Amino acid sequence: MSEPDKRPIAVAVLGPGTVGSQVVRLLGDHAKDLAARVGAPLELAGVYVRDTSKERPGIRSELLTADAHGLVARADVVVELMGGISPARELILEALAAGKSVVTANKALLAAHGPELFEAADRSGADLYFEAAVAGAIPIVRPVRESLAGDQVERILGIVNGTTNYVLDEMSQRGLSYEVALKQAQDLGYAEADPTADVEGFDAAAKAAILASLAFHQRVGLDDVYREGISAITAADVIAARDSGQVIKLLAIAERADGAVAVRVHPALVPASHPLAGVHGAYNAVFIEATAAGELMFYGQGAGGVPTASAVLGDIVSVARHRASGGRGPRESNYAGHSVLPIGDVHTRYSVRMSVPDRPGVLASVAEVFASHGVSIETVRQIAAQGTAQLVISTHRAPEKDLAATVADLRHSDVVGEVLSVLRIEGE
Amino acid sequence: MSEPDKRPIAVAVLGPGTVGSQVVRLLGDHAKDLAARVGAPLELAGVYVRDTSKERPGIRSELLTADAHGLVARADVVVELMGGISPARELILEALAAGKSVVTANKALLAAHGPELFEAADRSGADLYFEAAVAGAIPIVRPVRESLAGDQVERILGIVNGTTNYVLDEMSQRGLSYEVALKQAQDLGYAEADPTADVEGFDAAAKAAILASLAFHQRVGLDDVYREGISAITAADVIAARDSGQVIKLLAIAERADGAVAVRVHPALVPASHPLAGVHGAYNAVFIEATAAGELMFYGQGAGGVPTASAVLGDIVSVARHRASGGRGPRESNYAGHSVLPIGDVHTRYSVRMSVPDRPGVLASVAEVFASHGVSIETVRQIAAQGTAQLVISTHRAPEKDLAATVADLRHSDVVGEVLSVLRIEGE
Repeated sequence: MSEPDKRPIAVAVLGPGTVGSQVVRLLGDHAKDLAARVGAPLELAGVYVRDTSKERPGIRSELLTADAHGLVARADVVVELMGGISPARELILEALAAGKSVVTANKALLAAHGPELFEAADRSGADLYFEAAVAGAIPIVRPVRESLAGDQVERILGIVNGTTNYVLDEMSQRGLSYEVALKQAQDLGYAEADPTADVEGFDAAAKAAILASLAFHQRVGLDDVYREGISAITAADVIAARDSGQVIKLLAIAERADGAVAVRVHPALVPASHPLAGVHGAYNAVFIEATAAGELMFYGQGAGGVPTASAVLGDIVSVARHRASGGRGPRESNYAGHSVLPIGDVHTRYSVRMSVPDRPGVLASVAEVFASHGVSIETVRQIAAQGTAQLVISTHRAPEKDLAATVADLRHSDVVGEVLSVLRIEGE
Repeated sequence: MSEPDKRPIAVAVLGPGTVGSQVVRLLGDHAKDLAARVGAPLELAGVYVRDTSKERPGIRSELLTADAHGLVARADVVVELMGGISPARELILEALAAGKSVVTANKALLAAHGPELFEAADRSGADLYFEAAVAGAIPIVRPVRESLAGDQVERILGIVNGTTNYVLDEMSQRGLSYEVALKQAQDLGYAEADPTADVEGFDAAAKAAILASLAFHQRVGLDDVYREGISAITAADVIAARDSGQVIKLLAIAERADGAVAVRVHPALVPASHPLAGVHGAYNAVFIEATAAGELMFYGQGAGGVPTASAVLGDIVSVARHRASGGRGPRESNYAGHSVLPIGDVHTRYSVRMSVPDRPGVLASVAEVFASHGVSIETVRQIAAQGTAQLVISTHRAPEKDLAATVADLRHSDVVGEVLSVLRIEGE
């Protein structure tokens, strides 16, 4: 690395979409400020687009190029905002191999090919920054990689998908059904026409894998993440939760467990007093429990072109400063070799809501089913209705496989009308 | 800077108090992890104490030294946890001049002598890190210095003093008087026997000065911070706030205002729906509004030996990594030359609660006082009682000097029995 000089640092932007166009705009708007913070001016070397004939508002046409390889070759810093696996992966590897610094917001790529990319960065000593890949504008990657580098992360509970938080929050605040809340999210542009990636938890699972890799210093891939979405959540679930002083949130969870780590995404009942319960609308938040620091929470906008561009710019400044004045950022050395627990071995708490006949002896029979699997009951709440009743049973922590076997037995039990919902309890 | 090697990095700890002893412990407990993250082992070179004859649990006696200068001379990284101005200032300057990296948690020193210290760091190219000086364990310095380096901070609202938040929260949650809540805080060790530094806002003012300097890239000293404490807040204020859907929080505020900046600490009415309203007990939180990132909040423990030690360790890892593999952290170049607004010119909103006779024409007379100073009223709430009534008037934004003149006139007005409280409104 060279000593500080005033040679401009050439920035290539790959992908002129919602985020990319805002990054280009901010590079121009804040040029003077950025130069002061970097110690050298940032110069936009070009913007890779597939189709150079299409006009891109705010980007001078001579900066557009369809030659991604040529652009990477003449850049110091490569900013990948194309999304998807290919050609993003190849272009990033090409850049890192040539010692270029890389900034990316590509969560899918990092979740699928993170180790390969980090190894490529390590081989050439190049920076690979990705703040915008998890929770958009919220600084979460940097705090986990750097601020907590002298601490030990015990557990991360994250609301990392704004679409699902919006849907669940509307259901909770306004009593909407899942279908109506989702339709509203689509009308407002919070959800896509095909909402699968969000509502089935795929997006959150990619972010969970990235957060777990960082927090536990080891490889955690998408396949290691157990995943359930929110499409089965009903208005009745939301009401039952409220009556128990809880709210339902889709959580990305990564935790240490008996020398292993457990990573999962699923809807969960969270106490109304928990800081995550106050995260409304499309906002994101990441709650961290660390051995020394205790409880921390990071809150903000998890998506959107402008907020995400802020996170990308912060990364650009960091890697550009390294180029201007030497040094590099933290490496992702995945030195820890904890195993990742299969979901059946993870210890969680269940809340099971079921309809039962309203007659003596039912609770004893139901309790016997839990006991037969070694699952200990913490609370029982009964809601009477005409002729039948609902039982809401919350368990103590137990292995998932025992909880699942309990629920399977309940579904076939004579004394249970219907198992109406099964939700895990977190944050207590 | 040298290329990566395995030479141990010598760490000197100045001050073996609550935080220092925990830093020493964590350096030992996490030695293997820390070495992996730094790229070289960290070695405790010694601990400076005034009295080496006193035993320090957890610190081997041969590591204790009363020779601070000798210890600094043989260290690579100097961790200053003594507090106070002298000799902390001289030792840090000595270390920086010799090119040592410095980590400090000393908010009083940074607020009073920050520019001198940053200039010393710049002259020798040394790192000066201070995450633990603001909001304890919460990563806030790093996000503002680095994550938001490509953005523009518009406003910071911080709950940065745990003692006052505990007192106000107990008053709010349990209806305690200020005196009883403070006594309870003292009994629990949250407040000192002499609570002045906390309850009168001096501690928060030092943190406000540091945050404003970072956020606006300019010198903001303690003298630039307008300051009011919480000792005048009554149980009646807390009840009146709740009835208006608000809570009272002691806020450290730094904001851009008409090309200048404004920095102040005072109790404020915050809407119950604001994320800061949910910060309970002795917890801290910093809420940031940035042009591109939008609203962000950082939440966690603002004090305590172990949490604060976590923040110090994070800084030690960063500066040690720079020593092991080259480079340095961001510089505090105070290149922005905004003026700091005197409090009279700052625009705020007031909520004035006053007793008035319960007869026609009073509101008109009171409203006339506001109008005579050009202060526009947003809401009026009347609370009837026997023979007299209370008026709670919330204003639109207006210059402080006009609001203050309005209140002075109200105090002398024939139609006002007593001005019971004057609180600013923030976060709306």
